[in-house]
Amino acid sequence: MRTPVTIRNVATEAGVSISTVSKALNGTGHIGAKTREHVIAVANRLGFRPNDLAQSLHRGRSFSVGILSNDIYGRFTLPIVGGIEEALSDNRVSVFLCNAADDLERQKRHLDALLAKRIDGLILTARRTDYLAPLDIAALGIPVVHAYAQSAAPGAICILPDDEGGAYDATRHLIALGRKRIAHVGGPQSFEATRLRQAGYRAALKEAGLAPPPDSELFGAWSEEWGRDAARRLIDGKAGLPDAIVCGSDQIARGMADGLREGGIDMPGQTALVSFDNWDVIAAATRPALTTVDPNLKELGAQAGLTLLSLIEGKDVKPGIRRVPSKLIIRRSCGSPDRS
Amino acid sequence: MRTPVTIRNVATEAGVSISTVSKALNGTGHIGAKTREHVIAVANRLGFRPNDLAQSLHRGRSFSVGILSNDIYGRFTLPIVGGIEEALSDNRVSVFLCNAADDLERQKRHLDALLAKRIDGLILTARRTDYLAPLDIAALGIPVVHAYAQSAAPGAICILPDDEGGAYDATRHLIALGRKRIAHVGGPQSFEATRLRQAGYRAALKEAGLAPPPDSELFGAWSEEWGRDAARRLIDGKAGLPDAIVCGSDQIARGMADGLREGGIDMPGQTALVSFDNWDVIAAATRPALTTVDPNLKELGAQAGLTLLSLIEGKDVKPGIRRVPSKLIIRRSCGSPDRS
Repeated sequence: MRTPVTIRNVATEAGVSISTVSKALNGTGHIGAKTREHVIAVANRLGFRPNDLAQSLHRGRSFSVGILSNDIYGRFTLPIVGGIEEALSDNRVSVFLCNAADDLERQKRHLDALLAKRIDGLILTARRTDYLAPLDIAALGIPVVHAYAQSAAPGAICILPDDEGGAYDATRHLIALGRKRIAHVGGPQSFEATRLRQAGYRAALKEAGLAPPPDSELFGAWSEEWGRDAARRLIDGKAGLPDAIVCGSDQIARGMADGLREGGIDMPGQTALVSFDNWDVIAAATRPALTTVDPNLKELGAQAGLTLLSLIEGKDVKPGIRRVPSKLIIRRSCGSPDRS
Repeated sequence: MRTPVTIRNVATEAGVSISTVSKALNGTGHIGAKTREHVIAVANRLGFRPNDLAQSLHRGRSFSVGILSNDIYGRFTLPIVGGIEEALSDNRVSVFLCNAADDLERQKRHLDALLAKRIDGLILTARRTDYLAPLDIAALGIPVVHAYAQSAAPGAICILPDDEGGAYDATRHLIALGRKRIAHVGGPQSFEATRLRQAGYRAALKEAGLAPPPDSELFGAWSEEWGRDAARRLIDGKAGLPDAIVCGSDQIARGMADGLREGGIDMPGQTALVSFDNWDVIAAATRPALTTVDPNLKELGAQAGLTLLSLIEGKDVKPGIRRVPSKLIIRRSCGSPDRS
């Protein structure tokens, strides 16, 4: 932990008032040249940096932070914002919610308002994990954390779900239940999440000495319709029906379950299903109810909130990407080892 | 528009300072009895009311408001919060989002934090429209609007969806398409929304000289499972299959559609479906895609935000319940007049 040098530290050490330090460092107000030089020398000696202003007593803490999202309506945003809000309110920090809606003009207006309200920090979140916010975070002069979003800025701090680990766990679960011909039906490959889930699925197969069956890695939309299409492809495929399928989302899995059932396939007897999201309203309503990877988005939000607090308090936080472990929620779509 | 009498008006008229007015009206500080009486007399003459403090120059405006919800995770809350946020940010007002989660201790902590940050007003929202916030809104001393929530407080301002009007419109749509034996499958009758939707359904039938067929007003859970159960009841019922069904939610309608299809019923040929919510991911994925009542929740949120702004600016706002008109979204589940 680095204790930040505050403007008060500089004032005490230089034997002048806080406002004199402020005037000297900002080049404003009427103070003598000698005093100004003295203050600047002390500030330099102590290692005072302008950015420390963000945490300094001069600026003060407002005990409020902003959340800026391009997708306030998104079902992924919701639990994340909930987790952020709960973690911060437990620490007496209030949250401004701002929807930028992919509109740069609106984003700028929000940021201006938030900075005018002297927020202590900012969390950026988005509708997909590989979203790069069009924003110069260094220029904001306050701590920033990305939650379910990424940044091209060096040193950016990004909290993301563990897509690869989740798919690995889900595939291992199927293998442990005795399944061997395991297909993967994912979302669009333009999503990093899709590519990471495929990587986790393949890693688990490889570790168990298995391989994807022929023509059984399929990619399409994040939709039930794609799940139903993929069901027909797997039923009609020359390689024969797989005995398990890792689906890229609960919506895909729901379409898959409907498609397989309407094709006369018994689940989980002939084919087991596992999916991603643990989106309750879909996963629990599917017949059979879906065993699915919960990406722990509320926990992700909480970690983003607490990480931002650490930054605000001047603690050292390792930059880069941190992935929050998922958990596998067991329902009925994989059956048990004896396929009962 | 009523221009509020501010503490500054009182000070000018009484020929004393603002702080003297404040001391006189609050009974604090050291001022003479004669001055106190004079100030109180002037304040009364001008019609200054303690509540005006909320809009007064003495207090100042922070250009921030709070949203307090007991259901931040709810899919109904989401578009409402989005509508509030957009309307307010267009007016340069920022929004604090607070989740009380039915926890009175947490609610109190949030309110303390919001009042300490001198919010200009508060919007209360909830997971169901008949929720009564356990909160003495008068004691807050700031303007309050209820959005998708109600209040037992006299003079409370509540913005709600038009459940009765929505069901009336949906039923009229079926009648206009030539349907005559129209059933209603709703959610739990403990919800005011369920009772209002039934009233709208009945009003439309009555107006057309129709009546609910025997045993065809059924109530259960807000779930697909209930929809499937109800489908079996209608198929097996002695009264014969209705030629249209007004469902209380998209989830119920989805279960109904699955149940009817699996029972060999042709939709919309034999039976048309209409439902409530326009919850895209359910309504569009149902086979056939659902014609459904959109409760206009984003607009409801926007109206709540703008109403709160009016209150903050001291304008007169009619107290009581205001219902935001819904709109019927046409998809495929009702077919066309010739049932093609």
